[in-house]
Amino acid sequence: MSGRRFLFVLGSSRADGNTELLARKAAEQLPADVEQRWISLADHPLPDFVDQRHDSDHVRPPAGSSAALLLDATLAATDLVIASPLYWYSVSGLTKRYLDYWSGWLRTPGIDFKATMAGRTLWGVAALAHQEAVVADPLIGTLNNSAAYMGMRFGGVLLGNGSGPGDVLNDTDALTRAKTFFARETPLARFPYEG
Amino acid sequence: MSGRRFLFVLGSSRADGNTELLARKAAEQLPADVEQRWISLADHPLPDFVDQRHDSDHVRPPAGSSAALLLDATLAATDLVIASPLYWYSVSGLTKRYLDYWSGWLRTPGIDFKATMAGRTLWGVAALAHQEAVVADPLIGTLNNSAAYMGMRFGGVLLGNGSGPGDVLNDTDALTRAKTFFARETPLARFPYEG
Amino acid sequence: MSGRRFLFVLGSSRADGNTELLARKAAEQLPADVEQRWISLADHPLPDFVDQRHDSDHVRPPAGSSAALLLDATLAATDLVIASPLYWYSVSGLTKRYLDYWSGWLRTPGIDFKATMAGRTLWGVAALAHQEAVVADPLIGTLNNSAAYMGMRFGGVLLGNGSGPGDVLNDTDALTRAKTFFARETPLARFPYEG
Amino acid sequence: MSGRRFLFVLGSSRADGNTELLARKAAEQLPADVEQRWISLADHPLPDFVDQRHDSDHVRPPAGSSAALLLDATLAATDLVIASPLYWYSVSGLTKRYLDYWSGWLRTPGIDFKATMAGRTLWGVAALAHQEAVVADPLIGTLNNSAAYMGMRFGGVLLGNGSGPGDVLNDTDALTRAKTFFARETPLARFPYEG
Repeated sequence: MSGRRFLFVLGSSRADGNTELLARKAAEQLPADVEQRWISLADHPLPDFVDQRHDSDHVRPPAGSSAALLLDATLAATDLVIASPLYWYSVSGLTKRYLDYWSGWLRTPGIDFKATMAGRTLWGVAALAHQEAVVADPLIGTLNNSAAYMGMRFGGVLLGNGSGPGDVLNDTDALTRAKTFFARETPLARFPYEG
Repeated sequence: MSGRRFLFVLGSSRADGNTELLARKAAEQLPADVEQRWISLADHPLPDFVDQRHDSDHVRPPAGSSAALLLDATLAATDLVIASPLYWYSVSGLTKRYLDYWSGWLRTPGIDFKATMAGRTLWGVAALAHQEAVVADPLIGTLNNSAAYMGMRFGGVLLGNGSGPGDVLNDTDALTRAKTFFARETPLARFPYEG
Repeated sequence: MSGRRFLFVLGSSRADGNTELLARKAAEQLPADVEQRWISLADHPLPDFVDQRHDSDHVRPPAGSSAALLLDATLAATDLVIASPLYWYSVSGLTKRYLDYWSGWLRTPGIDFKATMAGRTLWGVAALAHQEAVVADPLIGTLNNSAAYMGMRFGGVLLGNGSGPGDVLNDTDALTRAKTFFARETPLARFPYEG
Repeated sequence: MSGRRFLFVLGSSRADGNTELLARKAAEQLPADVEQRWISLADHPLPDFVDQRHDSDHVRPPAGSSAALLLDATLAATDLVIASPLYWYSVSGLTKRYLDYWSGWLRTPGIDFKATMAGRTLWGVAALAHQEAVVADPLIGTLNNSAAYMGMRFGGVLLGNGSGPGDVLNDTDALTRAKTFFARETPLARFPYEG
């Protein structure tokens, strides 16, 4: 894992929520020589994404903006961890907006977003209040398909149960999975129709 | 269909996109005595959703705000149509933020959001650039599960193909489906684990 | 429900297994004027299915054969209940062979199999040893898609947990669902790509 | 790939069907030092599987029987390819019966079926008549979950389109995928709830 750089993108509107706690448990297992960077989307809010694809090219975001911070951090990561609570069976609105920015970055001259990200690894961490993990399938599918489109590897989603503050720390199954989560195999993502 | 009131929530950042065009084709078939209301989330932007569930009660949004407009329109609708382009295999960020507001409305005193919406019908309309419709499964799952949680009926999602301006009008299969879409059966939504 | 005729096709190799017990619990709730017929595929074994679709027409099976018994019972049913244990995440081999016979019946002159079954209802009942119900998705998908192809309604699948003899009678959630299972809405089945 | 031994289990009731043709196209790409063995389930029919799990132990099948042939071939394979036409949105009845035999083999003393198969790779090949590949999801799910249960790797399913004799040879997309199919990554299979 030497030389790997993990970016944790936190999609909750609140700090220290169950999703972040679970992500930190998994991150504890990363070797010391793996870089970790943690960015909260609530602390660095992006303006609403405007889809300009048929009007003009997107330009690189101005230095000092949240968009520039997130773009640079994304480009620098070998491993991108989307840590979002399961809201309405998908990623949070803050997280979805960050993903929508990728559409602009794909059209931003000079960064070669798709080629740069290809071969890197997308991961997910999500806390959910629902007992049945299958309700998180849409979140998993969104991340898997996004990775497939980008030619990225996909490490899957670490799920944990929790609603009240700190609840996820009582989900012993989730804590066990957290211990080995980032040691998982990370095959190139495939769309479902690719079998 | 007499007495039905359809609310179309438009989730694209641009007017007259393929999703809206497809939704309008479907809406043309609604009888004249069915009310239609169309609201663009880009024209009525919501502030970022803040999850206060463990701190305090949510309050009813101030009159005149986008949140009040959308809450009142949602409560008044017998049929709620989420018309969002497929962005990164889910609803758009604007649409996701609207859905996240439901979490606040569930905790807003005096509106009984869940009981009010129960038995009403959720529908989806989505244009996608991808040829393989299965990539839209996460969007469908998000809407289906949300309807199941709310005790709503689910009419499914009308999908159409289109990337460039107006492309969806060349998707003759989608236009055919649009003609009968709102005449579909709308069973009570079930979570996947409910078989 | 008056005038309805339920056919229960039992796909286990053993009598009184958990799947059959669960199906009988659900059937207890059917009104007295609903006909019930129960046929065990182990007691009426079909010869292995041979796909002749490109060689010749299939002929009606000889009177007195298991195939004739099952064909006649299937044609007579308004509601067809596939009661199969979850084996390797799908229906049992005995059940699958019965389904494969449908391919022959579709090509058997004089019975108009597809038109006859259209509008009738397919149901499923399945006991599984696994705790996580999502592993039964392939069984549910097989039945749902089969119903969609035939133009049938689909009532979903009643799942229960059980491995040892009689275990399912301890799955109180399943017993609760069994009480109302056949009272469910049964929308026309749709393929997944139909949204 | 040196030292790998591929077993192709053919599940069609007819020889030279589209599924077999597609599997042979994929197999053409295997290096010469990879062993290939092809067994047709129609030529080596298994008796109907009887689930004895609560009554007695299963015994090793008698030498010379189809069951012994298939058990020995399965135990010897590093790579097991289930080549079954998509019948009713799952594997064929013949194929399903072969899978059901695995339940007996898990309880057969002396062969340590699960430990032996763990780490080996399961693959699928399937021809379907339907245009929309998503209808094959239940077949894919059955194989994926079976691999996950056994601790096997899963290479996915090579799908091709074809109904009439030889049709699959006109599916140029499938033939392209066949060329690289067995060169795919084969991660350890995970159940869907494992994210």
